[in-house]
Parts: sequence; structure tokens; C-alpha cells
Amino acid sequence: MTSRRAAVVGTGLIGGSIGLALRRRGWHVTGDDRDPARAARALELGALDVVGRDPDAEITFLATPVQAVAEAARTALASTRGVVTDVGSVKASIMSAVSDSRFVGGHPMAGSEQDGVDGADPDLFAGAVWVLTPVPSTDDAAYALVRSVAIELGADVLALAPEHHDALVAVVSHVPHLTAASLMHLADERGTEHRALLRLAAGGFRDMTRIAAGHPGIWPDICAENRDAIVEVLDGLVTSLQSVRDVVANDDRAGLLTVLERARSARANLPSRVASAGDLCEVRVPVPDRAGVLAEVTTLAGALDVNIADLEIAHSSEGDQGVLILLVDALAAERLRTGLTSLGYRPAVLPLE
Amino acid sequence: MTSRRAAVVGTGLIGGSIGLALRRRGWHVTGDDRDPARAARALELGALDVVGRDPDAEITFLATPVQAVAEAARTALASTRGVVTDVGSVKASIMSAVSDSRFVGGHPMAGSEQDGVDGADPDLFAGAVWVLTPVPSTDDAAYALVRSVAIELGADVLALAPEHHDALVAVVSHVPHLTAASLMHLADERGTEHRALLRLAAGGFRDMTRIAAGHPGIWPDICAENRDAIVEVLDGLVTSLQSVRDVVANDDRAGLLTVLERARSARANLPSRVASAGDLCEVRVPVPDRAGVLAEVTTLAGALDVNIADLEIAHSSEGDQGVLILLVDALAAERLRTGLTSLGYRPAVLPLE
Repeated sequence: MTSRRAAVVGTGLIGGSIGLALRRRGWHVTGDDRDPARAARALELGALDVVGRDPDAEITFLATPVQAVAEAARTALASTRGVVTDVGSVKASIMSAVSDSRFVGGHPMAGSEQDGVDGADPDLFAGAVWVLTPVPSTDDAAYALVRSVAIELGADVLALAPEHHDALVAVVSHVPHLTAASLMHLADERGTEHRALLRLAAGGFRDMTRIAAGHPGIWPDICAENRDAIVEVLDGLVTSLQSVRDVVANDDRAGLLTVLERARSARANLPSRVASAGDLCEVRVPVPDRAGVLAEVTTLAGALDVNIADLEIAHSSEGDQGVLILLVDALAAERLRTGLTSLGYRPAVLPLE
Repeated sequence: MTSRRAAVVGTGLIGGSIGLALRRRGWHVTGDDRDPARAARALELGALDVVGRDPDAEITFLATPVQAVAEAARTALASTRGVVTDVGSVKASIMSAVSDSRFVGGHPMAGSEQDGVDGADPDLFAGAVWVLTPVPSTDDAAYALVRSVAIELGADVLALAPEHHDALVAVVSHVPHLTAASLMHLADERGTEHRALLRLAAGGFRDMTRIAAGHPGIWPDICAENRDAIVEVLDGLVTSLQSVRDVVANDDRAGLLTVLERARSARANLPSRVASAGDLCEVRVPVPDRAGVLAEVTTLAGALDVNIADLEIAHSSEGDQGVLILLVDALAAERLRTGLTSLGYRPAVLPLE
């Protein structure tokens, strides 16, 4: 039995971890990096079988910095017949630059694409959320392949529209990072008081500024690619802080309690990143055999936080109609059914035998 | 040999932990709470020898919510001849409300004064910073006693002027807390997107919002007592975020790198809370025998982050002159000497034999 073949372009932390994880599962992995020393190091660490390109790769992972993805995608699509996916942390600009049915945008929410291969870990994706951003032109089989490989590596796949992904990561990643930097500045600019101040910095401040310790190199790219969403969220944060400032300045005790109770309740609802392992049921959706249906249905499920445990497309022999069969958490099935109905689908929810 | 006697007013997490820590070291601890059930629970948990008040207590700890400290201080000062100290997280308002030479303001930077006694821990203060806020009217012996007991409980004592303490905790505690709440709001107000967004929330966002999960009950008091400092720091944060926003909006890559490199460097310099255990040397400071000298010298050391490992006041037999002997980290001695000289003192730095 021959191995399935994969390729990795960019052998840093993420690319190296993908290589290690795939090889552990029996895949043959070819890899390359614009820095030959880094590719050699990945080979040495066991993340690759061979350095180079593989025209027969069933799937090619682009794990380059975000601004290099579009060009890497064009090169990879021209040199293989397989599926190409990326790990960039901004998606809309990449998806509009690479419109090819064999390209599936992705973003595993683990590690950073700029950290070194020496931190590579075959378990990096276990329990992590791996976002995929199918669009109407995405080939269904290409999407299903990338999805199945991400799941094979232990990730929970969440499908989102590219713009939706970018707006959400601005809230949960990009703006928190910039805010941590701003909090550090407040401490830093106190000058001579700085040292005493920092001795006072207990757990909360340390927690809130930890991400500011990360390597700044990736942020100019991320901020350039996701500029509009980041600016919008920063404006929202400034408005929110100004409102809290007025509550404090006016000694509005009730207003302050309302603000903090609401935040506490939202924080308490922060779901675990690990999908629930509850009962599953089947959602069967008759679908027209046209492009874009899989993207529409899976990104709806993603937006509704309905985890798709399994997905199958049963094409009808008649040709113009098929059935999409989704296995989802039983408690979430009704939420998905309502959402699908509002988009004009006629789903049926069936308990598993 | 009879036990040294202490009293605790307010037997929540902090008061209970003080009781446990003192009793483990052989002290006799009397305690009281405005909620009799809570005092009974503290007794049951071994944090107290007896419930009630102790007019013979050498030291009384006020571990009530911050707005109840001033009245509790007046009661305690009227009913004992001993020293009284508190654990409130805001200091200037308390120090101006309680001007008594036997009262020493304090703030152990560990736990919260509103959490329950069931979380009490005799090791809560081990390695924690315990701020004391001596003022010119503070009795030297009273300050030295509170300092020695805090050190006995394992804390690093840091003396700061009350207003200085309040400005610093606004930066490292109060504003970070309000900012965490504002970040949670950004996520929360996305409505139906909320669930998917929160599944994306990886380590950074979880770290930054963790403190928003705390009990909101103490914050109206803290914000009322430290209003001006908090408003000033919030204004600074808003200005800083607006500047970052403009950097992002203008695609100013160099500006963004500068901002983030500076934050990274400041974060990397965040000192450990545990004082260094390097070589010590002696700083001898001839001082006039007048009130306020000890407060001035110790709060200067605090502001310069010079840890005072030991402190002794040698009064001259001539009456109007004494010598303050400080043991400090050898690497910090020169910093302290320069600071003292600029205040008009004539310190001498001597290596330990």
C-alpha cells in the first residue's frame, strides 16, 4: 500500500507541525521553504520525508507568512493537480486573490506561522479549532478533503465565510493583541515609577499583557491584510472604554455593576474549545446540484456554532439534485434546522438509530 | 511564654488567610465579622482562636471591604492600645480619613477582600508584594511592627506614598479589569455571531478576559475610592488605542513595529514578584529625629523598587539625631543612595562583612 502524499510550503512552527502530524499518520510529506536552512532543519526534525516540491501531492499546505500566501498558492496550483490550502490568519484578501476551485482557505487557531520549526509539535492541532473558508466557487470534493485531513490531525473544523472569519479574529485575536501592547505602554511611560509599578503587577496584569511578549514581526502583515475589521473593532473598544470612563467619573455604581455583571456572564459562557461529545443526530438536506451549496451550508453551521461531526454528499442519479447528510450534536440540530429553513432549504432532522 | 496577640476584623479570604498564617506561627488570633456566620466559619476552619474583639491585641488587621475600613479603624483604635493596619485596595482616601499615628495603611497584593473564607490559605502571602503606605504622622514603631509581621507571613514589603499606590494600582489592576470587561462586551454584542466567535477565542483572548470572570461586587467601592486615578489612566488608554488605530488605518508598518517592539521589551522586563536573593549591603542614613523620616525613606525605596531586606532605627543618645540602617540588594544600593542624596540625606553605602 502506497502512502498518501502531502506537501508543505513554509516549514516554520505550523508547517513543521503539520509535517510531523501527517508523517505520524503514515503520510509521505515533501516540504520546502524560501530559507533552505529551515527546510533542512525540518527534515532533520522528522517533519519531512524529503525537501522539495511534489507534483503528485494530494494536498499542499501553504504555511507561509500571510502576505506570501497568494503567490505561493498560484505556484502550487500550477504545479500540482491536487488540492491546495493555507494556514494564514487573515482570509478575505487571500480568498479574493486566489479564486481557484482547488484552493480552500484555512486557519488553524494554534501557534503562529512565524515561530520556528524547533517548536513544532505533532499534537499542536489536537482539540484546536481549524477554520475553513469555503466560498461558492470552492469544489465540494476539495473542501471535503481538507476538512477530513484537518479532522485527522485532531482539530475541530469550523466553516466560516472569509469576511466573517476576519471580523471575528479581529475581536478575539488582533485587537486584544494591540490592547495588550497599549496596556504595557501605560506602565512603561510612567518612567521612574515603572519598576515599582511592575512589582505590583499581579496575575491579572500579567495575564492581560502576556501576548504582548510575542514576536511583533507578523503583525504589520496581519494589520495590513485585516485593516478595516481591526479599525472597526478598535473604534468599538474605544467607545466602550469611554462609556466605562463616564460611569466611573459619575460614580454610577449601578451602571458599573451592570457593565461588570454582563461581562462576567459573557466570560462564564465562553465555550470550551473542545466540541461536546453528546448524542449526535442526522440532518438531511436536499440540495440542488450547484456550486456553492456546501460552502453556504457549512458556513451557516459555523456561524451558528453547530459542530459538524461528519458530512457526506449523496448525489442523486437523476443529476440535478442531491442530499447533504450532516451529523451534528443533537442539542444543536434544531438551531441548524431553523437556520437552514430561513435560507430556503427543507432539512429533516432524524435521530441516529 | 505567652503568645503574641493579634485581631482580625472581617474574616473573608484575606482576613481568614491572615488568621491561619498567624496561628501557624504561634500567634493568638481573635476575630470578628459583621456577619456572625462568617466569623463562626473562620473559627471552624482554624483561622481564629476565638470570635470577638481583643483589647490587648498587639496588631489588628482590618480586612473589611474598602469602604468600611475608615469606620472599622476608628472603632479598633478606640478599643485597643495596639497598632491597626488594613488590607484595602485603595489607600489615599483611607489615609486621609484615618489620621492616627497608630494606623498603618496596607495592601497585600493577593486574593480579594470579598472572596469567601473557605478559600483562605496560610500561604497566600508567601512571595506576594505587601504594600504599606506610611505617612509623616505614622509612628515609626507602628510601621516597623506591621512591616515585620507582613515579612513574617512571607511577603515582600514595598512602602509607597498612598497616592502613588493608588496611581499604580489603577494601571496594573483597576484599568486592566475594566478593559477586560470592555473586551468581553465587544464579543458579547456580536449577538448571533457570539457563539462562533467564542469558539475561536484562543489563549490570548482567554488570558485577557479571565479577570472579568471575577465577582463584580467589590468594584463599585474601588472605582468610587480611586475614581480620579482610574479616570486618568482610562483616558491614557483611550489615547493610546486611538493612536494604534491610526497607525493601523494608515498602513504605517514601521510605526506598528515600533509600538509592538516597545511593548514587547517592556513586557520582557516585567520583574519577578519575588525579590532577588543577591548580595546585600548596608545603607546607613543619618536622620533627624522627627516624624515622617521613616515614611519618606521607605516610600522612596519603594518608588525606586529597592527591596529593604532589613531595617533598624538607631536613635542617638544625644536626642535629636539618629541613624537609619537599611539592608538592601547590593545592586540596588547605588540607586537608593542617589535618590536619598537628591532628597538632602547623606547616606553611606557599606558592604556587609
